[in-house]
Amino acid sequence: MGLESLSKLYLPAIEQELHAVIDRAFTSDYHELRFMLTYHLGWEGGKAGPEAQGKRIRPLLVLLCAGASVPDNFSDSQTTMWKKALPAAASVELLHNFSLIHDDIQDHSPLRRGRPTVWMEWGIPQAINAGDTMFSLAQIAMLNLIDQVDFHTVLKANQLLNQTCLSLTQGQFLDISYESETIIPLEAYWPMITGKTAALLSTCTALGALISDTTSEVQSAFHDFGHFLGLAFQAQDDLLGLWGNHEQIGKSTTSDLVSGKKSLPVLYGLSQNGAFSQRWLAGPIQPEDAQAVALLLEKEGAKIYTQQVTDTLTQRALTALETALPTKNENGQALFELANSLLNRRS
Amino acid sequence: MGLESLSKLYLPAIEQELHAVIDRAFTSDYHELRFMLTYHLGWEGGKAGPEAQGKRIRPLLVLLCAGASVPDNFSDSQTTMWKKALPAAASVELLHNFSLIHDDIQDHSPLRRGRPTVWMEWGIPQAINAGDTMFSLAQIAMLNLIDQVDFHTVLKANQLLNQTCLSLTQGQFLDISYESETIIPLEAYWPMITGKTAALLSTCTALGALISDTTSEVQSAFHDFGHFLGLAFQAQDDLLGLWGNHEQIGKSTTSDLVSGKKSLPVLYGLSQNGAFSQRWLAGPIQPEDAQAVALLLEKEGAKIYTQQVTDTLTQRALTALETALPTKNENGQALFELANSLLNRRS
Repeated sequence: MGLESLSKLYLPAIEQELHAVIDRAFTSDYHELRFMLTYHLGWEGGKAGPEAQGKRIRPLLVLLCAGASVPDNFSDSQTTMWKKALPAAASVELLHNFSLIHDDIQDHSPLRRGRPTVWMEWGIPQAINAGDTMFSLAQIAMLNLIDQVDFHTVLKANQLLNQTCLSLTQGQFLDISYESETIIPLEAYWPMITGKTAALLSTCTALGALISDTTSEVQSAFHDFGHFLGLAFQAQDDLLGLWGNHEQIGKSTTSDLVSGKKSLPVLYGLSQNGAFSQRWLAGPIQPEDAQAVALLLEKEGAKIYTQQVTDTLTQRALTALETALPTKNENGQALFELANSLLNRRS
Repeated sequence: MGLESLSKLYLPAIEQELHAVIDRAFTSDYHELRFMLTYHLGWEGGKAGPEAQGKRIRPLLVLLCAGASVPDNFSDSQTTMWKKALPAAASVELLHNFSLIHDDIQDHSPLRRGRPTVWMEWGIPQAINAGDTMFSLAQIAMLNLIDQVDFHTVLKANQLLNQTCLSLTQGQFLDISYESETIIPLEAYWPMITGKTAALLSTCTALGALISDTTSEVQSAFHDFGHFLGLAFQAQDDLLGLWGNHEQIGKSTTSDLVSGKKSLPVLYGLSQNGAFSQRWLAGPIQPEDAQAVALLLEKEGAKIYTQQVTDTLTQRALTALETALPTKNENGQALFELANSLLNRRS
């Protein structure tokens, strides 16, 4: 079975686990609060469906890593290990969605996956609270691991989860802080995306290895895989944000410039103190100028730099995965497939 | 030792535990984010000090209940049990303060304990994030119980904590929902304050009993004590909000009427369908009308009703505490003292 077949097995199970967590939390009352969550998760309300649900990359990583890190000679548990990891998979997806609900308020984003955001539909006070509810459910989901694994593993998983929550808020703090500053040094990029993106991905991959009870060396290699996967993914996202195929991305390739996002190419450009830097300091970039400014950035080497950084990080992610998995079972092969598909996107 | 002496022992230890959690979370970076938390906790910034810190009632309840539920013949552990409960005490205080930071945004409150609220100082996006950070630290603090008690108790404590988080958000959902409605039935009051106030207090008292490893009957009696203490406290708060000694409360006794708060006396008044109800439906109450409207409410029996409800709930809280503690050690006596001082406030 490759990634596609395993996804067909895992993705419905992930949705089922998510449903179970929410069903247990909302027995008969609080229909509207429940609806805020199921709307955001893409299950209900206008334009509900696969498009609105997102790709569930994080829970998929948890299950694939759990299955992949089972030694070959335990072929039986390779095909069942992912079931043990389902509570953790649900937890990371709930945590991710908590952060998205609050992010959308913080960024004042009107749309998410083509639909009005929770705060647009219910107002800021209810949206803050819906995010807090999702956060609580992420915790409850992870504690449900107790039905699957021993006390020690449950505790470690919850510690991992909450160190990640802390990293997420630290990354978010930087992101919000950077918005009100015109110039940010290039190196300030890394702690921000480590907190905002890489921390949760490395927790996903480490959780899979933790649950399948591998050695701490293997867990550490899985952690590194997730970390570099997260960094590479974000750097590539920034690259595609400026020079990707805008029809496939579904937004203007230069909207990152217009919004003033402190992306990797922009911070590289600023570090060059050249024509781009002067233009950036002169004031906000208008949509009609954005193409020209992107070209300026490219001329100053920002595109090549970002591409090189992405390539280096991608290589590090794949090397860590090779270290974690000297031999690859089906889940391991699917993990490589997933990593390659995420990191070789052109849109 | 009475409540005063025990408080002198416990309160500094609670502050120390809170400091330790924050110190471990913030090693060298993120000074400003850290400052948002220490500012809110009353340690730093303008007007820092005991007034700004609040009374730390919730962690005090955890420690007193832990010490009180140790059987008499274990007199040695009675004087040390509270130390085991410190991580839980820090956790509930952090959780409470997370909810306050988000509450202040949701209610648009400019001041908390006489100081500008976090969102007033740092803006809504950073305040949402500071609340999320405090939430994460509450989780981390509770997981620190592993250094004090067995796996099973740590797990139970974290499950309790997160069921409470869920209840808090459900209560908050009702509170925000009620704001946009003119009439709310009297019975709608109880699920709101159960979620917003009683859930956390019952978790505080149950945690104390859980950590000192009493029988599940005693734990259940402690839980009931906290539950009714919370309900009685809130009902009394609503009473004092309209008819308390406004100089001691530090705000106008009728500001609850002007703000349109769905307090217990107001919901009782609405249920009477009389002159008060007509006045309420006619539109917002102005400060200059508030005294007259409070008098109207009193004439329709709202003051007596709220007083009776408070008395009944107070009695239930004390009865539950008697059930939990047929014999009282020093901590038990201090618990009765604390309950009486909270429930016999006149301001």
